[in-house]
Amino acid sequence: MKKWILSIIGIITLFTLRAESGYELWLRYAPITNPQLKTSYAQTINSVILPGKSPSSTIIRDELSRAMNGMLGKTPQFMNEPQNAGSLIIGTPTTSPLISTMNINTELQQAGQEGFVLISKKINGRQLTILAANHESPLLYGMFHLLRLLQTHQPITHLQIISTPRTKLRMLNHWDNMDRSVERGYAGFSIWNWHTLPGYIDQRYIDYARACASIGINGTVLNNVNANATILTKEYLIKVKALADAFRPYGIKVFLTARFSAPIEIGKLKTADPLDPQVQQWWKDKIKEVYSFIPDFGGFLIKANSEGQPGPQDYKRSHADGANMFADALAPHKGVVIWRAFVYSHENPDDRHKQAYTDFVPLDGKFRNNVLVQVKNGAIDFMPREPFHPLFGAMPKTPLMMEFQVTQEYLGQATNLAYLAPLFKEVLDGDTYYKGKGSYVSTIIDGSADQHNLTGMAGVANIGTDINWCGHNFAQANWYALGRLAWDHTLSSEQIAREWLGMTFTNDPNFLKPAQDLMMRSRDVVVQFSNPLGLHHIMGTGHHYGPAPWVSNLSRPEWNPVYYHKADSTGIGFNRTSTGSNALSQYYPGARKLWEDLNNCEEKNLLWFHHVPWNHIMKSGRTLWNELCFQYYTGAEQVKDMQKSWEQLAAFVDKERFNDVKQRLQLQYEEAIWWRNACLLYFQTFSKQPIPSSYEQPDKTLDYYKSLRFPFAPGN
Amino acid sequence: MKKWILSIIGIITLFTLRAESGYELWLRYAPITNPQLKTSYAQTINSVILPGKSPSSTIIRDELSRAMNGMLGKTPQFMNEPQNAGSLIIGTPTTSPLISTMNINTELQQAGQEGFVLISKKINGRQLTILAANHESPLLYGMFHLLRLLQTHQPITHLQIISTPRTKLRMLNHWDNMDRSVERGYAGFSIWNWHTLPGYIDQRYIDYARACASIGINGTVLNNVNANATILTKEYLIKVKALADAFRPYGIKVFLTARFSAPIEIGKLKTADPLDPQVQQWWKDKIKEVYSFIPDFGGFLIKANSEGQPGPQDYKRSHADGANMFADALAPHKGVVIWRAFVYSHENPDDRHKQAYTDFVPLDGKFRNNVLVQVKNGAIDFMPREPFHPLFGAMPKTPLMMEFQVTQEYLGQATNLAYLAPLFKEVLDGDTYYKGKGSYVSTIIDGSADQHNLTGMAGVANIGTDINWCGHNFAQANWYALGRLAWDHTLSSEQIAREWLGMTFTNDPNFLKPAQDLMMRSRDVVVQFSNPLGLHHIMGTGHHYGPAPWVSNLSRPEWNPVYYHKADSTGIGFNRTSTGSNALSQYYPGARKLWEDLNNCEEKNLLWFHHVPWNHIMKSGRTLWNELCFQYYTGAEQVKDMQKSWEQLAAFVDKERFNDVKQRLQLQYEEAIWWRNACLLYFQTFSKQPIPSSYEQPDKTLDYYKSLRFPFAPGN
Repeated sequence: MKKWILSIIGIITLFTLRAESGYELWLRYAPITNPQLKTSYAQTINSVILPGKSPSSTIIRDELSRAMNGMLGKTPQFMNEPQNAGSLIIGTPTTSPLISTMNINTELQQAGQEGFVLISKKINGRQLTILAANHESPLLYGMFHLLRLLQTHQPITHLQIISTPRTKLRMLNHWDNMDRSVERGYAGFSIWNWHTLPGYIDQRYIDYARACASIGINGTVLNNVNANATILTKEYLIKVKALADAFRPYGIKVFLTARFSAPIEIGKLKTADPLDPQVQQWWKDKIKEVYSFIPDFGGFLIKANSEGQPGPQDYKRSHADGANMFADALAPHKGVVIWRAFVYSHENPDDRHKQAYTDFVPLDGKFRNNVLVQVKNGAIDFMPREPFHPLFGAMPKTPLMMEFQVTQEYLGQATNLAYLAPLFKEVLDGDTYYKGKGSYVSTIIDGSADQHNLTGMAGVANIGTDINWCGHNFAQANWYALGRLAWDHTLSSEQIAREWLGMTFTNDPNFLKPAQDLMMRSRDVVVQFSNPLGLHHIMGTGHHYGPAPWVSNLSRPEWNPVYYHKADSTGIGFNRTSTGSNALSQYYPGARKLWEDLNNCEEKNLLWFHHVPWNHIMKSGRTLWNELCFQYYTGAEQVKDMQKSWEQLAAFVDKERFNDVKQRLQLQYEEAIWWRNACLLYFQTFSKQPIPSSYEQPDKTLDYYKSLRFPFAPGN
Repeated sequence: MKKWILSIIGIITLFTLRAESGYELWLRYAPITNPQLKTSYAQTINSVILPGKSPSSTIIRDELSRAMNGMLGKTPQFMNEPQNAGSLIIGTPTTSPLISTMNINTELQQAGQEGFVLISKKINGRQLTILAANHESPLLYGMFHLLRLLQTHQPITHLQIISTPRTKLRMLNHWDNMDRSVERGYAGFSIWNWHTLPGYIDQRYIDYARACASIGINGTVLNNVNANATILTKEYLIKVKALADAFRPYGIKVFLTARFSAPIEIGKLKTADPLDPQVQQWWKDKIKEVYSFIPDFGGFLIKANSEGQPGPQDYKRSHADGANMFADALAPHKGVVIWRAFVYSHENPDDRHKQAYTDFVPLDGKFRNNVLVQVKNGAIDFMPREPFHPLFGAMPKTPLMMEFQVTQEYLGQATNLAYLAPLFKEVLDGDTYYKGKGSYVSTIIDGSADQHNLTGMAGVANIGTDINWCGHNFAQANWYALGRLAWDHTLSSEQIAREWLGMTFTNDPNFLKPAQDLMMRSRDVVVQFSNPLGLHHIMGTGHHYGPAPWVSNLSRPEWNPVYYHKADSTGIGFNRTSTGSNALSQYYPGARKLWEDLNNCEEKNLLWFHHVPWNHIMKSGRTLWNELCFQYYTGAEQVKDMQKSWEQLAAFVDKERFNDVKQRLQLQYEEAIWWRNACLLYFQTFSKQPIPSSYEQPDKTLDYYKSLRFPFAPGN
């Protein structure tokens, strides 16, 4: 027996050595070593009663086997009847005769079309766990919920859970190009291998669907919003169909982006005018073709008249004209149009901050009812910190869908540890005052403010071909958080972090607490060393890697960092008050109040809304210049502190992932120093004030920082 | 205890489920289940005596622990003295006092600088296994050799192995671009993430080095022969250094490609003339800089005046002038120049087949002694089947290095199963008759024909970011075979296949035999359904994916398939006899004899050398046209047969890799049909003869095949 054990330990060691590439994400199903917990779980789910042979049932059966095997070292028995020991009964009232006898009609009604019921019952002395829903997809969500309880070592004997998603479309937007490059991708290349589709279904597609389903994501836009019409040709629709077929059993619908000028490019028409009957017919035919391949195709995500993309305004038509053309063609198939509000024009001299509002508010009420307008969380562009978009609360007749960026374009890309749930929550918890105090952005997004049924939240994906999917192991948490918040935006960032950490690393409290702290402060740290006090969009040109606040020579004024920070001899910041661009006027007075008075403005957004004199006294008592120095220096120091925290967690993490994070934290520290020095040296040319001598002075010149070039930076 | 075991079985199952992504390559170290074998191994290597703390020693210790853990379920004890049970004693005479007492001086002398000694001895009743070498790197090779014996279930109690490599430079050439695209890469993108280097050392770099070292590869050219001078800037040399540092302990030297015009592009000179003193000085300085970062830098691989690349001929200098400039600058640092002979000019109307020979033979004797000329295995370009290059045996004063293509540019890319060892061996075993019968190509390559010490064999790598490294799981065998043959070209294809299969899948004889058969015929099958009877270069334009024999409109004549097959109403094939281009005259008469007579020419190369009438009677008794039909149809049928063989191996292979291969075989079958139909329909327009009615007739038209476009085909 001793040999056995030795050999076993060998295998376990080997397992640890090899398996922790990060590929498994939060679905590692690590062995549960606490004997009491293990016994309790094993007894409670000794058998599973799950009728049916639908693809979803098969998936549930496979996932439960894999998970229980991993966590408990045994596969539950799949049976037709509950045993004496605990049973898990899964099904819908129509697929499972047992479920229909469980007397849970009220609960099922509450769960609705997309929710699930997960409750414990004792019947005839038998411990039953019931997982029920009105349709098959929510059963998957319920199963993953139950597994999450096990994975995070929660009790499962007295469950009383009815869970329904707070948004209807919970989506990832992939900015993946057809050549497999990924715009703003920092984790390798596109996981969609168009060349080997449709014949080759990569295991990765399946594991992607598993991961998405496990957090409730039910839609995916496969291709970049800067679209290529080729995706709509028959050759490629056949490939898209193969992915849709693979994702369907996981409850995930496929969406595509539509290039507005496709009728010209692949349809050989002379125009793409949305009011042209030929154009309308072309799209009707094309959409019919799409549905012939993919009967449950989700619809189109469209970026039009934005950053050079074609759109209805090319024909003097409105965004509503454009969106409605698609909406009419999609409606017979129950497809939706997701129309992006991310528009600004170099011909419009007005503050870029204001232009989406100006363009879209007049269109409220003019969109068909299968149109959602997808609004980025802020009015500029996914900045490290950004006030919520003024469009939230300003288009009551139109369902507004949230667009978050999961990929860290402006938050350190793949090298920085930045947990984004606090960023997402900060926006969702923002009070628009649209219907008075308490009109949170979340109430616009979940439809409750205006009784919209069609609702949604999307995240620009951070997924690529890197073995660990996301480049940085901690970036996986942002994919996870997006899904969890799309399901339930009332979850706290802390809880999401805890769940993710427990499943991804370990539930050991000596790990959980400090690791959670590390995550919780991480996004603020990035803000602090790169864009503190409301600074924004001062990143490197094109690739957005590192600082370049000095850039002023790009063809469009609003592409230049100097447009945003407006540093001069008197001060720094963008005056968006009534004496400036008055972008503030687009917010409701209650919301505006937080920001409009220079002396009362929350300091984290100060330079977003005000041009502030260098010697302005901050709440700290420091002058603005000194505060800026303080922020940059403290931010960089914080990264060093994060490194120390991580070092102390070495014992809890496998060597491979530990080293991954350790190396990236070191890169982050070097980048923080770079941000700090480059920005302060540059802003100093305006403030004409010294960096306080108590700080270590920059060891390189501004010219050095200006000379840096990154011709092969990723994601560009 | 029962629970323990259950839980263990769970872990084992989980391990199997997860670990077989293919990432582990042939270093899986699967548990050995035969109890006798296991006991014997465990007893023979009960302890390891390995002194020293050098990086190589650490690697040996780690790898042995991992391997023994995996195979035997126990880590050997690392001790200072042999025990009663069997010990493995590792070291060099200088690092290990024990080794110096082992009385193996003769063996060590035989092993030389790069070989190792692996012998069993009984001393004082103790079973000792001695792994010794004169330097540290070869110890690694010996360790991997020993592990291979275990992995393939060979006895290890009576070892008498002295192994020395037959070529000195055993290299991979990566055609990786700085933007991470890979020219002719079909397994994703470049594994070198230049953006996160030097700070981030991906575990993948280490595992790459492990895999290379395990098969004796000791050099790697990191970047594409179509070179970008930016790699030679300081910023990038720092990144190259980080890789060199990571590879050094594995005995792998880093090489780079040098863009001939770099002095202009990054040096701001007006010329790159190799005889210009400023240019010479620039390269001297640059090379000095390279060595300041990488003291053991290997040297440069250079593609010059080839396919549009700059080179010495731009300045009316010869290839020798160009190579010698680099050689002089590299010599003080012990670096070498690997100068490619792959040249042909569109200004030269002569048969492309002849041009490299014409250019290079006159230069024999004019190269410095640290220059190798790297010659592709054939005179055209890595065709599915190609007669050996006439340069072999034609430049006795110059070390000729072999360039094989491991990546399957012309052999079905990532979708086809084509085991290339038979292709490599066919070339190496080719008889040049340079010094009479028996003057095999291998004797040129290993230096024995002309007593060259500087020798080498390179393979264009098939490695990318795909989790399994090579796209097709069986493509891993080609990486493996390249390394094994570079070490010892006398190994048979069968043995290499067996080794690889045993380590990569299982040693079960019921698997090994049919799987080996599958591999052994696989390359011939690809030849048969795509380029039978000596046809060549009739692939799709640019990407080389699929058939396009009809293409005739490309700017350079020798880029067009019609240039190569020359089909017309009278027949098909390229007349390279004395009545044609007379490329045959470049071969020695003995070699030429195999091919020069239309009626005696080996049929597998018939159309390579002859324009053959459609009604020419072949050895089969069929006319050429009917034989062509027979070959194409039989080739496609063979793929179906391979599919059946694979299906029968399902029980021996994990689900994930089984499905990977299964899906790709299906794609290969569809591609075979495509090749067959497209080529026969096209050639039929010349032969004017029917496809014999006994065959299933093509169901698509020639126009259909001509209309196919692959705008996003990989590797282009």
